[in-house]
Amino acid sequence: MNAPAELPAAVPAARRAGRVQGSLIREILKVTQRPGMISLAGGLPAPQSFPADALRAAFDAVLATQADSALQYSSTEGDPALRSWIAAQETARGVPTAPEQVLVVSGSQQALDLIGKAMVEEDTPLLVGSPTYLGALQAFAPFGPVLRTLPCDAHGLLPQAIDAKLAAGARLAYVMPNFQNPTGETIDADRRAALADGARRFDFWLIEDDPYGELWYRQAPPPSLRRWAPERTLRLCSFSKVLAPGLRLGYAVGPQAAIDLLARLKQATDLHTATLTQRVVARLLNDGLLDAHLPRVRALYAAQAAAMLGSLRAYMPAGVRWTEPEGGMFVWLTLPARIDTLRLLDRAIDHGVVFVPGVPFYAGEPERHTLRLSFVTVPAERIDRGIATLARLIAEETRR
Amino acid sequence: MNAPAELPAAVPAARRAGRVQGSLIREILKVTQRPGMISLAGGLPAPQSFPADALRAAFDAVLATQADSALQYSSTEGDPALRSWIAAQETARGVPTAPEQVLVVSGSQQALDLIGKAMVEEDTPLLVGSPTYLGALQAFAPFGPVLRTLPCDAHGLLPQAIDAKLAAGARLAYVMPNFQNPTGETIDADRRAALADGARRFDFWLIEDDPYGELWYRQAPPPSLRRWAPERTLRLCSFSKVLAPGLRLGYAVGPQAAIDLLARLKQATDLHTATLTQRVVARLLNDGLLDAHLPRVRALYAAQAAAMLGSLRAYMPAGVRWTEPEGGMFVWLTLPARIDTLRLLDRAIDHGVVFVPGVPFYAGEPERHTLRLSFVTVPAERIDRGIATLARLIAEETRR
Repeated sequence: MNAPAELPAAVPAARRAGRVQGSLIREILKVTQRPGMISLAGGLPAPQSFPADALRAAFDAVLATQADSALQYSSTEGDPALRSWIAAQETARGVPTAPEQVLVVSGSQQALDLIGKAMVEEDTPLLVGSPTYLGALQAFAPFGPVLRTLPCDAHGLLPQAIDAKLAAGARLAYVMPNFQNPTGETIDADRRAALADGARRFDFWLIEDDPYGELWYRQAPPPSLRRWAPERTLRLCSFSKVLAPGLRLGYAVGPQAAIDLLARLKQATDLHTATLTQRVVARLLNDGLLDAHLPRVRALYAAQAAAMLGSLRAYMPAGVRWTEPEGGMFVWLTLPARIDTLRLLDRAIDHGVVFVPGVPFYAGEPERHTLRLSFVTVPAERIDRGIATLARLIAEETRR
Repeated sequence: MNAPAELPAAVPAARRAGRVQGSLIREILKVTQRPGMISLAGGLPAPQSFPADALRAAFDAVLATQADSALQYSSTEGDPALRSWIAAQETARGVPTAPEQVLVVSGSQQALDLIGKAMVEEDTPLLVGSPTYLGALQAFAPFGPVLRTLPCDAHGLLPQAIDAKLAAGARLAYVMPNFQNPTGETIDADRRAALADGARRFDFWLIEDDPYGELWYRQAPPPSLRRWAPERTLRLCSFSKVLAPGLRLGYAVGPQAAIDLLARLKQATDLHTATLTQRVVARLLNDGLLDAHLPRVRALYAAQAAAMLGSLRAYMPAGVRWTEPEGGMFVWLTLPARIDTLRLLDRAIDHGVVFVPGVPFYAGEPERHTLRLSFVTVPAERIDRGIATLARLIAEETRR
């Protein structure tokens, strides 16, 4: 039984696979594992924010008392107790929501994939902010949309400027309204209302991606877009930042017909999200874990953000601008226009600091002098050292 | 802050979403929850086969000692220890395999979805057995293949009969070689060799879906198709039947270029499979759990199969044929040609028995007088009662 020599056979790749490129960020993250490197690149939540003991106790309790059903196949839509908790929370925040309007997913990235599969028509316009979340662009890419950039001003998205020409043929707009990845910016209430108004006027749906909304520092962001356009908003949330990303658990909420459509596609995609994980998280949520846990996470992230903003103010040369996030994990820097941050990255790595250049976040023409910094996993004194180094390199580039 | 009245907005469904229908089986499974119903319909593994105590101890140990990394984001390809175990097992079974040739997925259904997305070109032929696994047909459907039925004889798939006309333009063939869902049949070694030969001759790849291979009763099935065509076989396996389906864990093994392609698509689909679950399962596998666990599962399923086959022999009227599986979870019945099992199902439900009609498993023209029975979750005395009832109803239909 000797196997024949393995000759390579050409992989039968479909055209749509060619539309998905490997992530630049992923390549950069490999660099961050070098010893001594100060990584301001990652989008990883801080491990000290994980409620490990509570999770450990809950896994133990669920496996001790209900293993037969918690280890079995379960419904595509999700665990009933988890869907009920989510619906109750959405309702408490001002948008009456039934459990049937909730789909549990394997991380909110999966909701983006399902929306791509179920709703993104090939060669059809899709409205997106720019810069915007790279993972959304990747999730939609295989389904072949034509990306159109939503209008912006100095305060971010400017939905008042959406016109018939831009909206023509578009059926979806993708936005991250709270503490956006990569810029850290938040859409204010007036602009949310204008966005909903535009969606209704030009008949497109809103994909509201909200993984960071709970991570506010001083006050909660404005209400969900569902507040203004419940009949055409799909809201995506994640437990990755409020509990732990290694669980891979998130959800989509919206009109039931849309949730039913996504569930039909999800069944063909992975049958359902892990039963055990859903049971454990439903138990913790219904026990009120977040009431005690979230304030700790918010305080941690607020302190980390303050440290980075302090270091930026202390070291950055004139001509460098940055966002001042009121929640979330990211600061966005705009350097003098002639500095290409892809080239700057090479020098920064040589000096032991890593960041993410702005280029991959752009759906349209990129602004090459931008970059994203994350402050959540690095201790304050290393943030300070990293920002000092980066500031020195930028000053050198500016003087050239 | 009163929300405006929710007016329904038309869901912006893409054409590809219309290709995915809800599962008939799923509708049938709802019926099985009625009190007193004897369900021979489900494809659920027996809960008494779940190693609940071992899983409980392993979750506890991983969360006690490595929570920071086990709850964090991790690599798209999968946990290194888990990939190594899988590669070592494939190698031990005769096909030298590196860990880089393994992609961990969120249940093997996800591998089908990724293959669909990465490899199934719209309006391009895809070769499938018929009947075949319904979930594979659903996973591939949104990507728009043209299904072509592989030739069969009384012993199942007949790959010797694949000719240039059938293979023209086809780049993939999907088969489940061991204890197939729905028929319980196994492809013998000669036909595996012939299938590999056909694949090489006509230049298509083999998707070998093998969720049941470990569930043999007396002897292991013939080697993987990778034994004969390692350079063009993607082998999909699942921990759903050997550990527990509620974990959602499976894997794909094959040529590295194909695994790399699937990993690129997986990153855009769900970033990665749950870190914690992978760590727990890798720990159990490396501790040798399966050595003790699998013999128990095999003995359990062999006894259940024997019970059902005994009842079939005892009660079924002349003119009814069935497969005699040597592993897995299913028996396939062929009734006299004029009995439509979709109609028979209604009567069976009225008499407290549920099965799955054959129709949904056919890629081509269905044989309406077939049905699938599962024997794994129902105690032997209830199997006996269910088969007796079913035999009586079939006899009545036959006499009409």
